[in-house]
Amino acid sequence: MLGVCYYPEHWDESRWAKDARRMREIGISHVRIGEFAWSRIEPCRDHFTFEWLDRAIDVLHAAGLKIVLGTPTATPPKWLVDEYPDILPFEENGQVRGFGSRRHYTFSSRTWWRESARIVEKVAARYGTHPGIVGWQTDNEYGCHDTTLSWGEEDRKAFASWLRRHYQSVDQLNEAWGTVFWSMELASFEDVALPARTVTEPNPATRHDFWRFHSDQIADYDRMQCEIIRKHSPGRWITHNFMGFVSDFDHFKVGDNLDLASWDSYPIGFVEKFPFSEAERTRWAETSHPDIAAYHHDLYRAVGRGRFWVMEQQPGPVNWAPWNPVPKPGMVRLWTWEALAHGAEVVSYFRWRQADFAQEQMHAGLNLAGSDEWSVGGREAAQVGRELAMLGTLPDSGRAQVALVFDYASYWSTMVQPQGKDFRFEELCFRWYEALRRLGLDVDFVRPGGDLADYRLVVVPTMVHVDEAARAALAGAEGVVLFGPRSGSRDRSFRIPQELAPGPLQPLTGTRVTQVSTLRPGLSDAVSGEVSGAGIRWREYVDARDCAVLARFANGDPALTRRGNVMALACWPDEDLLTGTLRLAVEAAGLDTLPVPDFIRLRRRGDLLFAFNYGTQPWDLPESANPLLGTRRLTPQQVAIWRG
Amino acid sequence: MLGVCYYPEHWDESRWAKDARRMREIGISHVRIGEFAWSRIEPCRDHFTFEWLDRAIDVLHAAGLKIVLGTPTATPPKWLVDEYPDILPFEENGQVRGFGSRRHYTFSSRTWWRESARIVEKVAARYGTHPGIVGWQTDNEYGCHDTTLSWGEEDRKAFASWLRRHYQSVDQLNEAWGTVFWSMELASFEDVALPARTVTEPNPATRHDFWRFHSDQIADYDRMQCEIIRKHSPGRWITHNFMGFVSDFDHFKVGDNLDLASWDSYPIGFVEKFPFSEAERTRWAETSHPDIAAYHHDLYRAVGRGRFWVMEQQPGPVNWAPWNPVPKPGMVRLWTWEALAHGAEVVSYFRWRQADFAQEQMHAGLNLAGSDEWSVGGREAAQVGRELAMLGTLPDSGRAQVALVFDYASYWSTMVQPQGKDFRFEELCFRWYEALRRLGLDVDFVRPGGDLADYRLVVVPTMVHVDEAARAALAGAEGVVLFGPRSGSRDRSFRIPQELAPGPLQPLTGTRVTQVSTLRPGLSDAVSGEVSGAGIRWREYVDARDCAVLARFANGDPALTRRGNVMALACWPDEDLLTGTLRLAVEAAGLDTLPVPDFIRLRRRGDLLFAFNYGTQPWDLPESANPLLGTRRLTPQQVAIWRG
Amino acid sequence: MLGVCYYPEHWDESRWAKDARRMREIGISHVRIGEFAWSRIEPCRDHFTFEWLDRAIDVLHAAGLKIVLGTPTATPPKWLVDEYPDILPFEENGQVRGFGSRRHYTFSSRTWWRESARIVEKVAARYGTHPGIVGWQTDNEYGCHDTTLSWGEEDRKAFASWLRRHYQSVDQLNEAWGTVFWSMELASFEDVALPARTVTEPNPATRHDFWRFHSDQIADYDRMQCEIIRKHSPGRWITHNFMGFVSDFDHFKVGDNLDLASWDSYPIGFVEKFPFSEAERTRWAETSHPDIAAYHHDLYRAVGRGRFWVMEQQPGPVNWAPWNPVPKPGMVRLWTWEALAHGAEVVSYFRWRQADFAQEQMHAGLNLAGSDEWSVGGREAAQVGRELAMLGTLPDSGRAQVALVFDYASYWSTMVQPQGKDFRFEELCFRWYEALRRLGLDVDFVRPGGDLADYRLVVVPTMVHVDEAARAALAGAEGVVLFGPRSGSRDRSFRIPQELAPGPLQPLTGTRVTQVSTLRPGLSDAVSGEVSGAGIRWREYVDARDCAVLARFANGDPALTRRGNVMALACWPDEDLLTGTLRLAVEAAGLDTLPVPDFIRLRRRGDLLFAFNYGTQPWDLPESANPLLGTRRLTPQQVAIWRG
Repeated sequence: MLGVCYYPEHWDESRWAKDARRMREIGISHVRIGEFAWSRIEPCRDHFTFEWLDRAIDVLHAAGLKIVLGTPTATPPKWLVDEYPDILPFEENGQVRGFGSRRHYTFSSRTWWRESARIVEKVAARYGTHPGIVGWQTDNEYGCHDTTLSWGEEDRKAFASWLRRHYQSVDQLNEAWGTVFWSMELASFEDVALPARTVTEPNPATRHDFWRFHSDQIADYDRMQCEIIRKHSPGRWITHNFMGFVSDFDHFKVGDNLDLASWDSYPIGFVEKFPFSEAERTRWAETSHPDIAAYHHDLYRAVGRGRFWVMEQQPGPVNWAPWNPVPKPGMVRLWTWEALAHGAEVVSYFRWRQADFAQEQMHAGLNLAGSDEWSVGGREAAQVGRELAMLGTLPDSGRAQVALVFDYASYWSTMVQPQGKDFRFEELCFRWYEALRRLGLDVDFVRPGGDLADYRLVVVPTMVHVDEAARAALAGAEGVVLFGPRSGSRDRSFRIPQELAPGPLQPLTGTRVTQVSTLRPGLSDAVSGEVSGAGIRWREYVDARDCAVLARFANGDPALTRRGNVMALACWPDEDLLTGTLRLAVEAAGLDTLPVPDFIRLRRRGDLLFAFNYGTQPWDLPESANPLLGTRRLTPQQVAIWRG
Repeated sequence: MLGVCYYPEHWDESRWAKDARRMREIGISHVRIGEFAWSRIEPCRDHFTFEWLDRAIDVLHAAGLKIVLGTPTATPPKWLVDEYPDILPFEENGQVRGFGSRRHYTFSSRTWWRESARIVEKVAARYGTHPGIVGWQTDNEYGCHDTTLSWGEEDRKAFASWLRRHYQSVDQLNEAWGTVFWSMELASFEDVALPARTVTEPNPATRHDFWRFHSDQIADYDRMQCEIIRKHSPGRWITHNFMGFVSDFDHFKVGDNLDLASWDSYPIGFVEKFPFSEAERTRWAETSHPDIAAYHHDLYRAVGRGRFWVMEQQPGPVNWAPWNPVPKPGMVRLWTWEALAHGAEVVSYFRWRQADFAQEQMHAGLNLAGSDEWSVGGREAAQVGRELAMLGTLPDSGRAQVALVFDYASYWSTMVQPQGKDFRFEELCFRWYEALRRLGLDVDFVRPGGDLADYRLVVVPTMVHVDEAARAALAGAEGVVLFGPRSGSRDRSFRIPQELAPGPLQPLTGTRVTQVSTLRPGLSDAVSGEVSGAGIRWREYVDARDCAVLARFANGDPALTRRGNVMALACWPDEDLLTGTLRLAVEAAGLDTLPVPDFIRLRRRGDLLFAFNYGTQPWDLPESANPLLGTRRLTPQQVAIWRG
Repeated sequence: MLGVCYYPEHWDESRWAKDARRMREIGISHVRIGEFAWSRIEPCRDHFTFEWLDRAIDVLHAAGLKIVLGTPTATPPKWLVDEYPDILPFEENGQVRGFGSRRHYTFSSRTWWRESARIVEKVAARYGTHPGIVGWQTDNEYGCHDTTLSWGEEDRKAFASWLRRHYQSVDQLNEAWGTVFWSMELASFEDVALPARTVTEPNPATRHDFWRFHSDQIADYDRMQCEIIRKHSPGRWITHNFMGFVSDFDHFKVGDNLDLASWDSYPIGFVEKFPFSEAERTRWAETSHPDIAAYHHDLYRAVGRGRFWVMEQQPGPVNWAPWNPVPKPGMVRLWTWEALAHGAEVVSYFRWRQADFAQEQMHAGLNLAGSDEWSVGGREAAQVGRELAMLGTLPDSGRAQVALVFDYASYWSTMVQPQGKDFRFEELCFRWYEALRRLGLDVDFVRPGGDLADYRLVVVPTMVHVDEAARAALAGAEGVVLFGPRSGSRDRSFRIPQELAPGPLQPLTGTRVTQVSTLRPGLSDAVSGEVSGAGIRWREYVDARDCAVLARFANGDPALTRRGNVMALACWPDEDLLTGTLRLAVEAAGLDTLPVPDFIRLRRRGDLLFAFNYGTQPWDLPESANPLLGTRRLTPQQVAIWRG
């Protein structure tokens, strides 16, 4: 199904009905509204002006649209900020982040929780049972613009409280953090300082806890909103619209509050954000890299426990990347179909009409700026609408045979202690995902501790701290399990495990890591054996205590080991080593592969098979394919669907 | 004529007479003094010590020198800063910019206006009618060191007042800025916040107005100084010494206050400042690029409504660039002659003698550090002095056949909303100017709304907002008019025009822009037709509604269009496309060209023709040339003048 | 002899005795303790808990170890910072640097001096005469993490006091600094502002004095600690552990307080810190560059007036560089032997056991993290222990024939006024040192004013200000003296000398510098004559008034001159010119050379000759060599010692 993000407050009321009618005409069934409208529903304290929104909802509902209503907490209005400046967030350098854009609040402020609860209650009470409202979105893009962490006095105080709950006594805190080092010992929880603005780096254990604390706060804050909404709006679902490549907080924990996950898919902008090479960036500038969107679809399907939307789908050029090219013709349609192929229930475009004002005036919509004229994206959306009508209801997604265990906390761990400056958690996970997808495999993301029993292959690009639930799930996996570098290298308090890495995984892998080398660009350690290539960036020195050695570094040290169904890779693999290792694991798992060129991707949804061409050359579908949509020769930017 | 910048307060009084005599000996007629001497004329509040300056002026006057006296407001003394810290400017990050160098004031401070008026009145009253004083300089280098914009509470308050004057009601402000977006609505003008230190980018409309506000303030501040001076110093002219590549404020508006413009020409330092390629930087490191000085001469001739000086001419290596090479032998002379060729009334060297102390001790003068010994630059200045005496009075400049419309506000527009990170306004204008100059054409700069009727060719590299006066002047042009990208793309309130770009120019161009693509380095869109090359950086998607299409992008979209005498280019052109397009426009305008190598430049002043060699190879003047100065074979770093 | 850094407070008391025993077993004779233990000996004000340290010292002493005790002032505890926030240092941007790591104090705080004296007195009184204590270390790594300079109000006040002492009257200060420039005149010493956060650059003379002031403060602070220790601990020596490539303060002045110097040798991390090319960085990533450690050994031998230790020797991978590779096998042993070859009395490893917690948990020790199992470094240290026992006492170092005059103040001078952005003082000195070492020569560092009479060759890479003592020493040198660029270019007040550069050296060199060109990468001035190559980065225009010209730039200007025994080079030399010039000087000095490949280094200690192989290929010792240790074919990462 298709949806769209709409801002009735941006357009004269006289235009609403026509807008709604034209939405329906191209096959849009859902419309999201309201998430930035606080100043229009409460222009000053306790003076509410809901009437316009009442009318807007009625007009949309009357046109047959299903409405997703957002809570407006991402944009506290000026009067509230002036009244309670303690809601403002702070930069790590100590500078306050002021009013004038959005997300100008810290999750640590008790005032902010009170004010959030107040407005959410107001909105939920007024619209909770409106027949047009089918679901809710909490806030908007938690963590966007680096707003997970905040570094002010409110944050320090909330952190101290969190620590008190987790450590109970300051002695335990001192012991856990090892504050005896450099005389950092604290006499009480009140002594806790922000782990920033220190002379040299602060204690990584403190910083790691600071991150965990903020992550927990977001989940708690979101739950607070959800509880209020559920009280007032029975029978409606709740979601939140997550971002791409934001790992500052544990999305799985927020997902636990929600009925379904959603995310905001801007495939082209991410090409500039992710650490691709310049050559890759140029190559994929106008289509995006073929795994960018898919990676997140699969991630958020896991966050939503099987259910997800694309809440905001890029409909054309945007405004916020260093460069903002027009997508190649066909890409808006391709991205939409790809989301559906990965199981999206609804793909909702952002936004209905390009705004002719304010920050996002260069962001395309389905209509040209300020007008009622379709944009290129609008025409492609309409095409998908027709195609969906033609194909009818899509089957359920089903489970993949490969699981990728994705651990947000490992991002924080590697950020607070990179050791090598190019050890980037997201890059590691993405490159492993890409290599699996190029073998034609579908991938499920699984959170640490999630059930792994039925997967034929489980890959763990890294999991720095392995808690008991995660260990048990991994130990219980029946398929092949492949661990990447750094796994099991820290305990719960960010200390090195007493038995050394991989800590609690040692019985599984049969290995022990005695030292680590981080390698600058230009350095690598060649690997040969059952696989070959090289280790780059991060290389572990491993005792192979109770395992077979499948490949070795040039000096004879183990590079890839196997103990039963468990394989472990002792380095960040270069492309050859990564591909070879995954092929070996896939073979060991007995999985069939269908290797594709680097510009083609496949995906199964139920009994439907999809193919997508991100490249500049055609590709022929397998002989057996008989397309329901598209043709056997899949030309650039085209989609094919067949049953198989 | 020649001049020099002199600091009598830097040298023992016993040296003044000899200095003045030696100035006259090499042909210097004008001397600028006083612009940094506040602490010496008012060492503490209301205690004035003018006597030394009285004597200095008398000594210089007695030697036959004409004196330009600067108001000392660029350097408020320590006691004043301590008394009124509210005069200090602020960085965008909120940090105060303190005492200890220069320009430590914000134009927003009412205190500062009062104190400025006080000291200007004192100086003007004392020296206004001195027979040695022929002119005045207000302040020094407005905007230098990023001092146009300031970001403190004084600035916020002054901005709010400016907004109240311009928008009258806060409702109109909210409507103009589109503050409904992200709940940014203001309840009163007191609510206005600085458009900085926000979580993500602030409203570009706010930022654009903030820039306009500061630009207006400078013009008003300068006018305040001029009015005081005119009251006390009848019959003397007033100038200000502008900078190179500073577009933070509208120089035309300041120019309206003045009798003539002047600027400070440091050709070599600008090579490091302008976004040249590294290869260009290395190539031109010791001569400067051949258009750097000329571009500014032509600009400031327009700012001065036909009259301009070089107030500070680089006389050798300077101190403030990342590298400061010694100019090649002959360059000081060449730069001097080039300024004269472009119509400069006086070329004044900075400075008489290298200081052996303080910030600029590595800045060359006409004399070696602290000494009475000529530097290389001093000897070259003396040579020009002799040559000028030989040639006699130079003819008037006359008007060029090509106009380049230069719009400072477009700099602010593209800064507040780059959309592509390499869309640089100054670079666009400079490259268009360079291409015209390489065809041997002279160029006049014209402000938006300036009379264009008699030009054969009018180029508008860009003009983001086109007001009614500018539109009328462009519509009234009888020559060929060529528009560059982004023209007419915003209205007065920084909104997208209702009819889309080029807004009010649509009737002239017959085109409409529906979307824009910004292209990272490595991406380009090939163009072919009557011209060929490629669009880079910025590419518009154009409806050719009522125009001919002269060239198209690879997908068939219009790239260059023509409607009557109006041509429009839908992209940032690469070098081939730029040259081809300008050649086509020049041909359409029926202009003769004399293409020159990239290291040679020509310029006409009245009936005199000048040629300059910036390169490493000789170049032969046209057959018809019979040099008054120099030889027909123009060797590197040489100048030739002939009548033609 | 060998030593180790140990933190009894990090490990359970039950482990101390075994640790001590195992130290002795591998030949360790010295152990440094206590330098970060303040919070454990005074957990809150005036509550002292020395008992654990009493026991630790007794245990170590009982095992036969000699103890070096550190004063704990590098890590003031939380309660002290809370009680007296005025001890905290400030960033140049004005931001306070808070508690949570180390070195969070400014030397300008009077409170801090009082508190430092108090704790040093306590510690020195308690342990001063303990038979196990053989020496003391003051504080830890002065200047580490950019802590020499601090930019707060305490610093401003202390600077004003320092200026009052040095200039006596504010008129003399104004004259010296040339504050007449830009109306910067001060009415009193209270008017002095921090030379930072100004609109454009502050006065370089002020900044230079600010650096000198901070340098003086460190020497004074260190002397305060030494005096207290000496009072309580007769017969024990005092040292401080300096850093590599830190020139923020004058180490010679601190050295004057000490009985011997020591330094912390982390050869691999420095490869990322020093401005090597990327190719060099990759080449030397796992061994370090062959001159990095040696350069500092020779420097600190001078700082210690002949006596030095390596207090902290890298034992494996560390944690603080952008990348932290594992050293190649053999390097820990090689570095240890190299330090001994250069005269180190003790090489002390940092640290005994890798910490499994806090900031340095990725820093290797002689034992694996938290364990009693030898690391690779531990095994190599044990090997050196055996080899040392085999060889017996090493002879004294003796004096080299080449002196390199090293002037810390020239670092400050070139930092406050780079003029060309790649004029890097440390790089200049290092490259001159490297070129001498590649000729097989040993080098002594000498401070300005140090005795030069007996050296055959004296090189002065640069000495910006030459005071009378330095001038006299240079004039008194009997060997060949070679000056590099910028020498003698500023007087005591950072003014250009009245007679121009090289100022007081003019009678020695017979040259005068009239102007300076700084050259961006890609520009160079070819040199030919008795030497050839090119000047890069910095090029002086020289009058050869009373000297021979040995080589000239392309335009005929002097590049290398000679007057009697004094040679002067008028540029930053490229590699060819540097090598050629030093060869010429070495020949003129009548020295024998033994040129080595760029990966081999030689060093003499008494009658022992050492060779070290940093490369990947073997090298054969001279025919005459008969190794006491190692073999004639010196393979990679190997050491050879022979008598000669």
